Amino acid sequence: MGKISFIKRDFLKTAGVVTTILRFFLSFAMVLVLAGSALAGAEDKDLMTRANQIFGPLPQSMPSEQNPITPSKVKLGKLLYYETRISVDGTVSCAKCHPISLYAADGLKKSRGNNCKENPRNAPTILNAAAQISAHWIGNRTGVEDQAKQALVGPPSFGMPSYESVEKIFKGIRGYVILFQEAFPEDKEPVNVDNFAKAIGAFERTLMTPAPFDDFMKGNSGVLSERQKRGLQTFLDTGCMTCHFSPYLGGQMYQKFGILEPYWNYTKSEKVDDGRFSVTKSEADKYVFKVPVLRNVAMTMPYFHDGSVDKLDRAIWIMAKIQLGKELSKEQVEDIDAFLNSLTGKLSDDAITVPVLPAME
Amino acid sequence: MGKISFIKRDFLKTAGVVTTILRFFLSFAMVLVLAGSALAGAEDKDLMTRANQIFGPLPQSMPSEQNPITPSKVKLGKLLYYETRISVDGTVSCAKCHPISLYAADGLKKSRGNNCKENPRNAPTILNAAAQISAHWIGNRTGVEDQAKQALVGPPSFGMPSYESVEKIFKGIRGYVILFQEAFPEDKEPVNVDNFAKAIGAFERTLMTPAPFDDFMKGNSGVLSERQKRGLQTFLDTGCMTCHFSPYLGGQMYQKFGILEPYWNYTKSEKVDDGRFSVTKSEADKYVFKVPVLRNVAMTMPYFHDGSVDKLDRAIWIMAKIQLGKELSKEQVEDIDAFLNSLTGKLSDDAITVPVLPAME
Repeated sequence: MGKISFIKRDFLKTAGVVTTILRFFLSFAMVLVLAGSALAGAEDKDLMTRANQIFGPLPQSMPSEQNPITPSKVKLGKLLYYETRISVDGTVSCAKCHPISLYAADGLKKSRGNNCKENPRNAPTILNAAAQISAHWIGNRTGVEDQAKQALVGPPSFGMPSYESVEKIFKGIRGYVILFQEAFPEDKEPVNVDNFAKAIGAFERTLMTPAPFDDFMKGNSGVLSERQKRGLQTFLDTGCMTCHFSPYLGGQMYQKFGILEPYWNYTKSEKVDDGRFSVTKSEADKYVFKVPVLRNVAMTMPYFHDGSVDKLDRAIWIMAKIQLGKELSKEQVEDIDAFLNSLTGKLSDDAITVPVLPAME
Repeated sequence: MGKISFIKRDFLKTAGVVTTILRFFLSFAMVLVLAGSALAGAEDKDLMTRANQIFGPLPQSMPSEQNPITPSKVKLGKLLYYETRISVDGTVSCAKCHPISLYAADGLKKSRGNNCKENPRNAPTILNAAAQISAHWIGNRTGVEDQAKQALVGPPSFGMPSYESVEKIFKGIRGYVILFQEAFPEDKEPVNVDNFAKAIGAFERTLMTPAPFDDFMKGNSGVLSERQKRGLQTFLDTGCMTCHFSPYLGGQMYQKFGILEPYWNYTKSEKVDDGRFSVTKSEADKYVFKVPVLRNVAMTMPYFHDGSVDKLDRAIWIMAKIQLGKELSKEQVEDIDAFLNSLTGKLSDDAITVPVLPAME
């Protein structure tokens, strides 16, 4: 009995020790969990704060003082966006190189204009695109309106012989004469290419695609996966945001493509493009391009000014390597890739409906 | 006073006669009005009855026993309709030659396919088009499914080297693999070009455009103007409906273009097209074409198999002249033109929305 008592006592003692140890570990684990969740919350909050500082909220539209957005201009602009009958071979519209079905890019290395002529560079999406410093990769268009107007007579795009020839077509379609009058009620002769450009511009200035990333910036941390958050953190830490800032994650500055090494060593581009040099003739602008907007980038392959790279992960790795001198690991690339996928946004109901164009009579 | 009385009596007598005459004329006028309205009503009713006998109501869709319409097939088919990445140069989709914005025709004399190759004939609209005896002008496609499938490898259309090359692309896009599985749940390997064709077909089989003319046939005589009703009457009396019958006003038979005189004398066609002869090699099929559907004809210029005629009124005059041996007056042509405008229908909400395509990864 003494033995039993001893054993019992011992057992109880041991059990007590175990319980104490268990209690200690449980408490410690709970402290860890609590600390962890508090930490994660703080980390998310910190990440949101940094994201808001660097990118900021996506606006409802991209207004312009020179070209105020009005419903009648947007309505006309949307029709004109689909108009092929104002191209020299009757096949080119804005939507040809910027089809909504492919997030307003065309999936080609380089777009094909009238008579299938190849354009000099890859067609960027026109979604969230009207608030950039300029239009086109080398900034040779002042903005979306200028781009739309010049495209009409651009040899590889619409290829029309003159602005007058375009205006003549519009004047021959009664439906358009009325729509131009409604969109530009103060103009005596509203049917002209400047108003064509303004209408297209007004339409494009409404094309925003709010994305999960915007919900995250508003404070909803659950919309991004842990991998996406890590990717955002890596995007910031690596320095991608040095050029890809603003609500559009780009479009606000020019930058040399290949700061540290020639880009073509990595992109395997078929030919070397001088970039903005061809506009300014300044040596400093050699291989300089506009920093592209990254919204919807996961939907708008192929990548770079010449569409030379098909895969987003490869494009990410190249950018870090030759712009920032950093060799990202496979995991880091995958994280950033996941983050960039959170920039794939939702098109508005207005953006995804096709208008029926006025008939020729 | 006696004089006055006499005058008064006379006046009263005269007034009485006038009243009687007036009453008579009023009654007569009312009879005329009533008779007139009854007559007009009877005429409209008669016209409605004849129209219903010859054309009949537009169905809700164009079903097929071989290819039942299901929501998941239609959903996939609509995506595929916009898919350019399955063409040899990445620019051709169904929507290229059949853009919804132009009532699913393209406004060209002859469509331009991959690398801008010219197609042999004018692209007809694919709206209300799936219930015809065959597809294409010369009936060398059995139906919309056959047309869609063969277009993939058609040298002037998608131009792909083989069906396998198309299937390989679909298999490389995860989004499509899932969508094909959903649309064809009983197939072990659903990602193939036959199912591509069925999905496109199912989508096209839903594309109906009910028009004012359909409301008229249902008994609402007020939706057509007097000119349009006269035009319908002339359409029937002239004999146009001998070939242009069915709810689609065409698409049910083949007919020689230029029964009485060579068509090219009138269309000024650049080259003579043998028509269905090239399919059957039968002399009887020389210059024979499928009778085109007339729904939305006012929106789908230019006209005829080679798009050789720009104006609808000219096309109407030519048809009566060389098919029926009748020289229509300017007014008769204008009446028929007005009637044909009542066939311009409304596209469904589903038809006018653009789908966003699965991304390449």
